[in-house]
Amino acid sequence: MNDGDTADDIMDATYRALCTHGYADLTMQDIADEAEKSKAALHYHYDSKHDLLCAFLEYLYDGFVDRIEDPDGEDPHERLLSLVDSVLDKPDDGSEEFGTAILEIRAHAPYEQGFRERLTKFDDYLVDELEAILEDGIADGTFESDLDSEDTARFIVTVLTGAATERVTTGRPVECTRQTLREYVETHLLNGQREVEA
Amino acid sequence: MNDGDTADDIMDATYRALCTHGYADLTMQDIADEAEKSKAALHYHYDSKHDLLCAFLEYLYDGFVDRIEDPDGEDPHERLLSLVDSVLDKPDDGSEEFGTAILEIRAHAPYEQGFRERLTKFDDYLVDELEAILEDGIADGTFESDLDSEDTARFIVTVLTGAATERVTTGRPVECTRQTLREYVETHLLNGQREVEA
Repeated sequence: MNDGDTADDIMDATYRALCTHGYADLTMQDIADEAEKSKAALHYHYDSKHDLLCAFLEYLYDGFVDRIEDPDGEDPHERLLSLVDSVLDKPDDGSEEFGTAILEIRAHAPYEQGFRERLTKFDDYLVDELEAILEDGIADGTFESDLDSEDTARFIVTVLTGAATERVTTGRPVECTRQTLREYVETHLLNGQREVEA
Repeated sequence: MNDGDTADDIMDATYRALCTHGYADLTMQDIADEAEKSKAALHYHYDSKHDLLCAFLEYLYDGFVDRIEDPDGEDPHERLLSLVDSVLDKPDDGSEEFGTAILEIRAHAPYEQGFRERLTKFDDYLVDELEAILEDGIADGTFESDLDSEDTARFIVTVLTGAATERVTTGRPVECTRQTLREYVETHLLNGQREVEA
């Protein structure tokens, strides 16, 4: 087994350990157990739980980029909705427990600069992707010409973050947010469609 | 000292202990120390940390209702913005640490039904208040007549939840959300103002 396989194994084990134990109670031993490795073997690759979790956030980030980049769609409107869907839908193996663990990690960002930097990258990437689609749509007349693409992109990211938090906190289905976001796009962003769609 | 004073003292101590220790590491002893009481005295009032924190969430809820009910303003538009401001602004004694502890508690809601029930009450109360203002504004012509007041209220709550999460996770100032929400209200909810404000 080469180092790449080992790293992937440890990342997979971290995912499973987070689902089972949550973030607060997670130990290097839990991850070692999931990976069927010794704690010493884990420490050979990562100095601390903090280092391992920073690596894990980078691993998640790579998966996130793969999942949301270049969304399907015939035009900027379809691509925007497709991007929003990719963020709202969990990956195939995504569990409720994992969403919960991620919210715990988010809550620890003020104490762990390494977490904050990496979590900020997710939001910034998503803002950039949304902004690019909005700008394409403004240029080709899909979206309102007076739209501020950066503010609108940030607003949509805030809505998506709120939906992810509500899913954990109150168990509110993301379907409601998906529906409201679709309406927001149709009635407020699409060029001249407002009266027709309303 | 009567029981009411004791309960208030314990709630104040819980607030300070959460700011200092966060939720995950919080012990009954930490709260007892903050309250300058024995752990036994704390257990006389609350069987467990879970019970105490449920009581604390109810205490926060009462404060939340006091803070946001009956918002100032000459008309539904002003009252809506005033309500949003009350939620975005922390109370006078609100610290970043406390917002972080609350996000930790939110992340534990799936494992603690008592937390979930109480946290859901906050969102439901806020939705009801927003909905009432939106309906007043639809009735008196302030807002668009075809607005779905419940969906719009839920959407605003999701945005506010997202802003609170982002403040903790990435340190993003709520001022940005405040500004975008104001623009959303002005360009998308106000009746016939769209072209003027855009």
